[in-house]
Amino acid sequence: MYRPKEDDPIDDIPDIAIQRLPLYLRALMQMQDHHQRITSSQELAQHLHISSAQIRKDLSYFGEFGKQGTGYEIPYLIDQLKDILNINATWGMALVGAGDLGRALVRYNGFRPRGFYVAAIFDSDHGKIGTHVGDLVIRDVSEITRAVSEMGLRIGVVAVPPAAAQAVAEALVKGGVIALLNYAPIMLNMPESVRVHYIDPVAGLQSMTYYLPHA
Amino acid sequence: MYRPKEDDPIDDIPDIAIQRLPLYLRALMQMQDHHQRITSSQELAQHLHISSAQIRKDLSYFGEFGKQGTGYEIPYLIDQLKDILNINATWGMALVGAGDLGRALVRYNGFRPRGFYVAAIFDSDHGKIGTHVGDLVIRDVSEITRAVSEMGLRIGVVAVPPAAAQAVAEALVKGGVIALLNYAPIMLNMPESVRVHYIDPVAGLQSMTYYLPHA
Repeated sequence: MYRPKEDDPIDDIPDIAIQRLPLYLRALMQMQDHHQRITSSQELAQHLHISSAQIRKDLSYFGEFGKQGTGYEIPYLIDQLKDILNINATWGMALVGAGDLGRALVRYNGFRPRGFYVAAIFDSDHGKIGTHVGDLVIRDVSEITRAVSEMGLRIGVVAVPPAAAQAVAEALVKGGVIALLNYAPIMLNMPESVRVHYIDPVAGLQSMTYYLPHA
Repeated sequence: MYRPKEDDPIDDIPDIAIQRLPLYLRALMQMQDHHQRITSSQELAQHLHISSAQIRKDLSYFGEFGKQGTGYEIPYLIDQLKDILNINATWGMALVGAGDLGRALVRYNGFRPRGFYVAAIFDSDHGKIGTHVGDLVIRDVSEITRAVSEMGLRIGVVAVPPAAAQAVAEALVKGGVIALLNYAPIMLNMPESVRVHYIDPVAGLQSMTYYLPHA
């Protein structure tokens, strides 16, 4: 199992390098699906549009994974990256919001092969509470803190309207959640100890229209 | 309307600054929704967890929007940012994939107030083609290139399984699309002239689990 070295504290590794590791893992898993066993930083670079020097540098923070001239053994590098990214076990997530997005997330089959699944879903709509999405029964948002605590969940997914997002995030954190995936288009005000990853497709679109021909 | 100055080429503005502008706009629009008329870089900083110096620097690439001591007039700064981000007109998008995610995107009411709407939806499933999602009729993927070209759409959204994503993206680009929002968890191989923004929630999750206690 990967452990940060004493003399090379984990905090020295830039966040941006950590953010690229899942892309390397994703590419490697796709290569493995195609029964490929060896790759190189050059091949990964071509797939990912990231320079091979950058890829070698990012990986070098964690050890020596390839041999000069022979490249990386894919199954080994996948195992190592799973260790580093802490996804050898599968993480259950508490999802709040059983609207279109929440329901799509429950049914999304891309989570489990990559280390995640929705373990519980909550909504405030009494018409929805008690009904099923996939195998899950929708529970009342008032149960979030207790359920998250009882189930020992550390990851929360916020898929509610902006006005409800802060309260929902607080209830999740009170139950023990320390990492949040937030789909609501607002910034959450959270303690430093809680990690938040934001998904805002419109912000992504707007950062592209900037470059498109102006009318 | 915002135009880049001749002696200050648009390319000199770092991408990362452009990526923050939508966050400023989003925060300003939320303040406006709460009938607030004036803000400051300090207040924006607090909302967004971005330093006020960074915010002032990002905005300064485009002009002088605030007055020392009196702050920013919110409606004016919103107008300017909409000009800069090129979203004064609303952009129609061609969406491919009418699964759970695609349907959630069609019905998502967060697009239009921020400058976007789904103008056409395509799928390869003959059980879905011809049926409705919201006001839209699902069309055959074989029509993508022609429809996108006829409708003059410049933005495409890829919400199909990974194995289909590259072909779908190529059909969109052949029809005239120059900006892609890609939800498929693979990298697209596109000409330099096409912008791609990736949305991969699992990559986001994995970049957080790295920091969580290892089992």
